[in-house]
Order: sequence, then structure tokens, then C-alpha cells
Amino acid sequence: MFSVTVRDHMMIAHSLSGEVFGPAQRLHGATFVVDATFRRAELDADGIVVDIGAATEALRAVLADLGYRNLDDEEAFAGTNTTTETLARFVADRLADRARIGALGEGARELDGLVVTLRESHVAWASYERRL
Amino acid sequence: MFSVTVRDHMMIAHSLSGEVFGPAQRLHGATFVVDATFRRAELDADGIVVDIGAATEALRAVLADLGYRNLDDEEAFAGTNTTTETLARFVADRLADRARIGALGEGARELDGLVVTLRESHVAWASYERRL
Amino acid sequence: MFSVTVRDHMMIAHSLSGEVFGPAQRLHGATFVVDATFRRAELDADGIVVDIGAATEALRAVLADLGYRNLDDEEAFAGTNTTTETLARFVADRLADRARIGALGEGARELDGLVVTLRESHVAWASYERRL
Amino acid sequence: MFSVTVRDHMMIAHSLSGEVFGPAQRLHGATFVVDATFRRAELDADGIVVDIGAATEALRAVLADLGYRNLDDEEAFAGTNTTTETLARFVADRLADRARIGALGEGARELDGLVVTLRESHVAWASYERRL
Amino acid sequence: MFSVTVRDHMMIAHSLSGEVFGPAQRLHGATFVVDATFRRAELDADGIVVDIGAATEALRAVLADLGYRNLDDEEAFAGTNTTTETLARFVADRLADRARIGALGEGARELDGLVVTLRESHVAWASYERRL
Amino acid sequence: MFSVTVRDHMMIAHSLSGEVFGPAQRLHGATFVVDATFRRAELDADGIVVDIGAATEALRAVLADLGYRNLDDEEAFAGTNTTTETLARFVADRLADRARIGALGEGARELDGLVVTLRESHVAWASYERRL
Repeated sequence: MFSVTVRDHMMIAHSLSGEVFGPAQRLHGATFVVDATFRRAELDADGIVVDIGAATEALRAVLADLGYRNLDDEEAFAGTNTTTETLARFVADRLADRARIGALGEGARELDGLVVTLRESHVAWASYERRL
Repeated sequence: MFSVTVRDHMMIAHSLSGEVFGPAQRLHGATFVVDATFRRAELDADGIVVDIGAATEALRAVLADLGYRNLDDEEAFAGTNTTTETLARFVADRLADRARIGALGEGARELDGLVVTLRESHVAWASYERRL
Repeated sequence: MFSVTVRDHMMIAHSLSGEVFGPAQRLHGATFVVDATFRRAELDADGIVVDIGAATEALRAVLADLGYRNLDDEEAFAGTNTTTETLARFVADRLADRARIGALGEGARELDGLVVTLRESHVAWASYERRL
Repeated sequence: MFSVTVRDHMMIAHSLSGEVFGPAQRLHGATFVVDATFRRAELDADGIVVDIGAATEALRAVLADLGYRNLDDEEAFAGTNTTTETLARFVADRLADRARIGALGEGARELDGLVVTLRESHVAWASYERRL
Repeated sequence: MFSVTVRDHMMIAHSLSGEVFGPAQRLHGATFVVDATFRRAELDADGIVVDIGAATEALRAVLADLGYRNLDDEEAFAGTNTTTETLARFVADRLADRARIGALGEGARELDGLVVTLRESHVAWASYERRL
Repeated sequence: MFSVTVRDHMMIAHSLSGEVFGPAQRLHGATFVVDATFRRAELDADGIVVDIGAATEALRAVLADLGYRNLDDEEAFAGTNTTTETLARFVADRLADRARIGALGEGARELDGLVVTLRESHVAWASYERRL
């Protein structure tokens, strides 16, 4: 099994609902350093899982829709806690949509799976893994 | 599949038995930077795998029982080589105990698995993965 | 010249005023991984610049006053752009105050200087350096 | 499941064939920071997956055959695009050969699998995972 | 004193002349992860050293002239060993040129100095520091 | 001003004397990831500060005298607290000795200064800087 990972980041504001979140119930923010990993059993004719340039561009486009925003005001997350876990799934699902429509190249339709990791600090991060 | 990881560290002395260890048979020590990863198929009602605060607290408590000690003198490790691999399993098992008694929150009883990684330097680390 | 550095982090929301900031003029947020470096020409009688435990505690206390907040609503920053540079100076000045009142130990009164670095992502950070 | 990882690096020149590679079709180069992960269900009698010293030595030997070379001139890669993915597989296969002939110690014959990750920059990396 | 640092990278081929370089006399290559640090005694009216976006753009432009090339064929380096140190100076001097012509913003004309660090691996890097 | 840095590590046991050290008064240990930075105003005829290979070898030799030892039993540290700061100075002074006798190459006699940083964990490190 092969994989390729690209990294980018986004900076957002949000608050979290639920006593378990303590002070994070207040409006605050985060830089999420985001790693998107693309998995595939065999390489394509060029010898790659996915073009690193195309993968970087796809990740940048997905994060551009989230970054420099207060997620509490975004319709896409109405009624949802924008936890690190939830955002990892959101980014993975948007990347899966892009792979499906060919934005990651024709070969990317052969991808087996995707993992997205959001690092919220040097001591905490969350991941979501899904099939394609 | 979702996961959440928290990081902490411990500083210990120990020696290792067996010719394979070369100079590490002498009493020496290590800083282990410890990553504890909690895995779960679905998020709980708050949208999390486990509360990052509770996970951090549980890891700190487990490491506090080991840190600033000479592991050669600890009963828990009598007759055991305290290799990085063995210590990764020890930490994972103690975290599993805590999850089982509810110290990671009620939701944490739904955790599927656990990975503990101990980084002994910038060029070597070991992991242990188990079900919960 | 000796130095000791300790690391912690804070998660805040804010917006920045001025065309130069582009999309960062909107309410967004950041995780700042904060490194506080304490400098001293000679070590004290214990052989240290400053106790790492005390330095860690001082940094945690300073960051606790900022973290999990919308800095746009904090009086301390009224009329100030809370850029990474400005926040680095703010944290350094608060640590200097603590050193002066002995919160970093008696020896810390002999500190020569202080550097505070705030990392806002894996690709950008800012520092402020001052005398004590 | 246990694993042990060791890290080293190599510095090579190469070019890549195929329009998808854009400017990387020109002769250029890369530092690959290489992580080799060895997996095993149970520890050996010494309490290890594989001796970290032996693993480090094996990785160094494999990389020494590639480093400080123009891979476009190497027979081993004639007709192959030396993408990060392809090189990850090459390194993994050479390590598997060494495990098979006992260069990683007798116990290493019990290894279950191997993952090799090549980091080409702070924002992109690739992995290959195989059984042993 | 304040500073702001931005990070990018380039991937190049080259060879080094001189017995001291051993195997690096052969054509090989490197990824250089490049940190550009801008220093200034006082912040500008916006509360910044330099706009992080403009600094990132300037660094990207300078590295674009070097990346994906065999530096042995570049006229700019004829008769020069393209060591990590030499390249750090080259990048710093090009950034200084850009600051001078206003490409980093009007305020950047007040910059006091510049440090460029090129990381060639996880275990070696070089820096060049100059006034502006 | 130019600099070159090389990284290695050592694993030691020790205890620290003085109430300020709390639990670190017990026998424990540390991995120190060690960065040695060599500074020089002008490059030598080869275009370098110091040969990275020679610098790496010198650092390895200095650390080999300390690693895999209980520093409480080493004569070199009798009556001295082996704090991170003290060890940084010790390593720097040993590297200075080596530079003086030509072990870093003839050109290294032109070095202006040296900084040694010991990272004891992901959240704490210490440095010592001296002239040569």
C-alpha cells in the first residue's frame, strides 16, 4: 500500500457547545495544521499515488473555504460542534468530492482511501480516515 | 474511523539486559515524548472521540507514576527489560485501565483502540497498538 | 551566555485592522505555540538560568489570561492590533513583571534578557526580545 | 501490534518523466528524510521488535547505495520514474532483503511488516507499506 | 527587537568542488527548507515587522528562481561552490534587494536585518545574517 | 555572519542536588538532542563555515564520552549539578578544544563562536554560547 501526504493550514474562530469543553465554550480560535494523506494499492503509470501539486492545490482550495472565518457563523456547520474531529471529517469529505470529479487527476479515481489529520497545537491532534 | 492524540513526556533512568543492547546495558536514561492516540468508529454526542483535556490528564497521571525514577528499582518492571516497546505497552495498558473505569469520561467506554508511541530521540521511536 | 526555553500554547480569536491583513481582517483565530527564552550571563548556585518548573508555571499563568478568548473584546488590547508581534511583546512584558516580583525565583532577578516567540503555523512565527 | 522506527536521510539528484511533474521534469534534487518502521505482533526474548542499532545500521547501508548520486544514471532505476513513492518501495524492499538474510538479527525474521516513509519537504511525504 | 519568520522550500541538484566534500563532489541534490527572518527595532503603524503575506510571496519568488534546477548550470553560481552557507547568503541578498525596491511594503524599508536559514536535513542547517 | 549547525543526541542518567529540582532530585535520566552551531564572519576558500561531516564527527565524539552513562558517577562532574545548562557548556567547551587542535579542519581555527543547545523534551531546552 502506498500513500502520499501534503500539508497546509487554516486559522479559524469558533466556540464549542457542551460542558465537557470547559473554557473552550467561549469564542476562541485555532490554527489547524492539516495533513491530507491519499492511499492507493498500486501506483499509476507515472509512478505516483496522486500528483503532489494537484493534491496541494486541492487541499488549499478546501481550506480556503474555511480559513479566516468564525465557524460559528457558517451555515455548513449550523447545529454542529466544530471539534477538531468533526473538521477532520469535513475536510476529508470535501477532498473526496474533489477526487470524484477528477480535480486530483484521472488517476486519483483509483484512490483507496484518505486520512486527514488536524494538528491544533504541539500537543494535540485528531484524524479522520475514510474510503474513497 | 476517528482518532485523537495527546502528547506529554517522562524522564527516566534504566539499564537494559542482553548483549544486543551494547552500551545501553549500562545505567543510562531517556526522555520519552509520549503520544497517546485514542480511536473510535463514531463520535459521541459532543462530536468528539474523547475529551482532549481528560485524555491529557489521564496520560499525565500514568506518566507521573514512571517519571523521575530509576525503572531498574521499580517493582512493576522486576524481571522485565524496560525497552521502549515494553514501556509503550505499559503506558497503553494503564490508559486502557483508566478508560475502563470511566476516567476518560463515559463516552470513552466506546473507544475501539489505543496506540501509544514513545519517542526516545529525534531518530528512534516505538509504538504499541491495542484494542479496548 | 546561557539560556533556558520553555514551550506552551494558547488558542485565541481575533481580527486585525488594516488593509494589509486581507482576509485576516475578518474574525478568525490562531493557536500560538509560545517559546519563552530566559537569558543570563552566569548560572546561579544550583547551576541553572531559571528553574524550568517555575518558568513553565509562569508561562502557563501568563497564557491562561489570554487563552480561550476573543482578543477583540479584551480591554488590555483596546485600540491595539493583536498581531503575532504585538502578542509576543505582551507575553514577554508579563513574564518580565513576574520575574521582577520574584515569581521565577530569587535567582531570576539576575536574568539579563527574555525572548518570546509565537508560532502561528508551521510556516510563520514572530519574536520579541527585551532586556530585564 | 508493536513497531519500531528509525530515521536517516539521503541527498540525491534526479528528474521525473511525465507532463504531470511540471518543473520537476528538469534535473533537480531532494533530501529525503527516511523513516523505516518495523512491525511485529510479539516482542522477542529481549523485549524488542528489532535492535534499534541494527535497524539504524541496515537503513544507513541501504541509503548509502543511493545517496550523493544522480538517480537518472543508476541502472537500478533505468526506465523507472524515481518518484518519492517509488523510492519508498525501493528502500522497503532492500530492507526486507536484509531482514531475510539475518542482517537485522535472528529475531527480525519474525517481523510482520515494514513501512518506509520518505519526507521530501516540510509539506510533502510518501510511504510504502509491505509484509515481510 | 522584533522579528518575523516565514518558511518555504526549494529542491535543487548540484555538486561541490573540493576534497573536503567527499561523496558530495558527485552530482546529487537537496531539499532546502528555508526560513527567512526579518528584524526591526519598532513595529510599523499596523503593528507588524513586515506583512507575513508579502514576506511569504517574496521568499517564494526568490526560491522560484532557484528551485527545480541543477545549480551547476546556473550562470549566477559560475565559479562558486553552492554550499548551504553560500545559498543562504544568496537568498538573503535577493530578499534584501526586494525589500529595497519596496516589494515587502513601504514599512519594510525600516527593516534592520535579515537572517536566512537553509535546512538541508533533519540533522544539518546553515544560516546567514546581514543588515539591511 | 554565517553559521552551520549539526544535530546528534545522547541518553544519560543523573540526579540533581537542590530543593528547586523537586522530583528531579531522584535518579532519573534524559535524552538530550544536541545542536552544535559554529559561527564565522567569512566563509573559507571552499565556501563553508566548517565541514558538516567534520562537525558531525566532532559532536559524535564529544557525546560518546557522556552517553549511556550515569553522570552521577563521572569524575568530570564531581561536585557539579549536571543541569541542562551545565551540560551545554561542557559540550561547547569540548568542541572548542577540538576546534583548537584542528579536529574540525584548519579553517575551523577561524571560527568566531559556538552555541550548543540541549533539548531535554519537546517543551524545554537550554543553550550555552561562547567565543572561540
